[in-house]
Amino acid sequence: MSMHNQSPTRAIAAAVLMLLAPAAMAQTPLAPRDVPAKTIPVPDDVSPQLQAIIAQPLHDGWNTPPTTPEGWKQLAASEAAAAGAVVEPMAKRLHVKIEQGMIDGVKVYRVTPETIPARNAKRLLIHVHGGCYVLNPGEAALPEAVLMAGFSHMRVISVDYRMPPQAYFPAALDDAMTVYTAALKMTNPKDIGVFGSSAGGALTLEMMLRAKQEHLPPPGAIAPGTPMADATEHGDSFQTNALLDNVLVSPSGFCDAAARFYANGHDMVDPMLSPVNGDFHGFPPTILTTGTRDLLLSNTVRIHQKLLQSGVQANLLVFEGMSHAQFTLDDRIPEDRQAFKEISAFLDQHLGH
Amino acid sequence: MSMHNQSPTRAIAAAVLMLLAPAAMAQTPLAPRDVPAKTIPVPDDVSPQLQAIIAQPLHDGWNTPPTTPEGWKQLAASEAAAAGAVVEPMAKRLHVKIEQGMIDGVKVYRVTPETIPARNAKRLLIHVHGGCYVLNPGEAALPEAVLMAGFSHMRVISVDYRMPPQAYFPAALDDAMTVYTAALKMTNPKDIGVFGSSAGGALTLEMMLRAKQEHLPPPGAIAPGTPMADATEHGDSFQTNALLDNVLVSPSGFCDAAARFYANGHDMVDPMLSPVNGDFHGFPPTILTTGTRDLLLSNTVRIHQKLLQSGVQANLLVFEGMSHAQFTLDDRIPEDRQAFKEISAFLDQHLGH
Repeated sequence: MSMHNQSPTRAIAAAVLMLLAPAAMAQTPLAPRDVPAKTIPVPDDVSPQLQAIIAQPLHDGWNTPPTTPEGWKQLAASEAAAAGAVVEPMAKRLHVKIEQGMIDGVKVYRVTPETIPARNAKRLLIHVHGGCYVLNPGEAALPEAVLMAGFSHMRVISVDYRMPPQAYFPAALDDAMTVYTAALKMTNPKDIGVFGSSAGGALTLEMMLRAKQEHLPPPGAIAPGTPMADATEHGDSFQTNALLDNVLVSPSGFCDAAARFYANGHDMVDPMLSPVNGDFHGFPPTILTTGTRDLLLSNTVRIHQKLLQSGVQANLLVFEGMSHAQFTLDDRIPEDRQAFKEISAFLDQHLGH
Repeated sequence: MSMHNQSPTRAIAAAVLMLLAPAAMAQTPLAPRDVPAKTIPVPDDVSPQLQAIIAQPLHDGWNTPPTTPEGWKQLAASEAAAAGAVVEPMAKRLHVKIEQGMIDGVKVYRVTPETIPARNAKRLLIHVHGGCYVLNPGEAALPEAVLMAGFSHMRVISVDYRMPPQAYFPAALDDAMTVYTAALKMTNPKDIGVFGSSAGGALTLEMMLRAKQEHLPPPGAIAPGTPMADATEHGDSFQTNALLDNVLVSPSGFCDAAARFYANGHDMVDPMLSPVNGDFHGFPPTILTTGTRDLLLSNTVRIHQKLLQSGVQANLLVFEGMSHAQFTLDDRIPEDRQAFKEISAFLDQHLGH
């Protein structure tokens, strides 16, 4: 058989035999893969709405994050001012009301379905928003909370945690824990769910690690979406999906700069910044969500595998063609509706009632 | 705020508002994404054994498949001759024995654990191998069957189905159904599991569609790995993972040529060749497995979503950095062991006993 008729399966089988010999493994240089430039069409196996989102070009300035505390603050503020145009019509469509409040000194939003079925009477979801620990203050945090309240028909408290330059690590986690501790006085731990995406996904995992440290009971279930679970740039999809993901775009872009701004010199390896390094034993049932073009695809699947290896019941959802956290955008995108239906069904299955 | 300080979340939120207006949606040209050339290192967040597999360069001849029936036959035969060197030591390590046999005129291998716990006494797994419907005859089919028998401690019957140029579509499916029908006489439907990867994953799904057509009861659970579920080249990861996946490499490479050779002129859209186009209602609990670099990542997650939307209990495993079907290679790769532990646990949970 000539080399030109070597099949994929045979080539790999031969490689396995060769490479698993310990001597060969030590000596084999780990060659990177050279992937040529590609022009990748918008996939036609997703909804027209998602196709329109996928077709959006990389946004201006993806690689020029603010460089000063004032710059970050100004960016976050302008986002918050613009958020109402997305959040309020969505809340109306999904029949949920939004009220500002305060819990033990922490700013929150209460996002409440107009109708709450008896099954959900004692249930309470805590939302920790994304935005690389620095963005999405105020109403900008709420699209995901509105989607969850709308599809789960459960009460949601969204934590408007302190962010830099007002307060640095671990202020966001401290605020989330304040609300979690308060929630434990409102209802049974098993009736509580915690969710959030991106930095909010990381915070959800960090809360579980902190709850173990503080000997607090775990909630009934959690839903960390595409968690920023490794702030040290480990994770293959940081490279494979770079410049393909039209939200985060590149590990050298926005989000890592923001996370370092939040960490304020603290070691990024700390499980309270990179929860992939934590111990997941005893975590509650967990559902994770990501997309095939997500820069954090790898870190989501790494967390999923680590949960399974820690004996935790863990489910994984991966949406075709989606970049980072695009399942949290808008109820008019069919895939976003589907994501929140599936996450809601998981919470409904695992929370007490 | 200047364009250069536009954040990822804000840019997308603005796009959503704009793009979801029906008029805009109709008019928006769906621009492809231009991704520059990249040099992608071997990820260091997987085992050294998997790193060695990931570091393997694209195999010679990935884009020069055989062009004649005789060429395919010769390739398949040389694979089968080489397979023993992988299969037999693995069977020994995993304490399973392999015997050739025949069931109602179909060639099979019986892959049997040395020790079968009482819980598994009535359980029986049917294996349909991969290889693009054309490769992996004889012992070349067996690595996955050996892994499954070794980790599940359940009896496996691997179907050595007819392949081109001996027999064309739907011969492979016919042979698999002959064995399934025979299995229904050996034990209860709920005690039967069906599994296989790549073309074997597609065949597993096709068997479920055919069982519905023939009014046969479904098995207790199925485990289609990275199924070749859409033979029409739809699926975003055909593009995004092209030349990154070091097994299938590219949709214009080996596998689609082989599938067309099997189809022998039949319409590739037929659910019996592209099961993504079938109706999944009534399917048994299903666990799917893929990798972040898999050319069939998209088609695996599309099947997962379609199963969930059809009311089927469906779990998804995605392994960091893995190309197509690399979880089926060898028990000395920690991730492969982990995959078969997780698949075995799912089957154990859902099969009767």
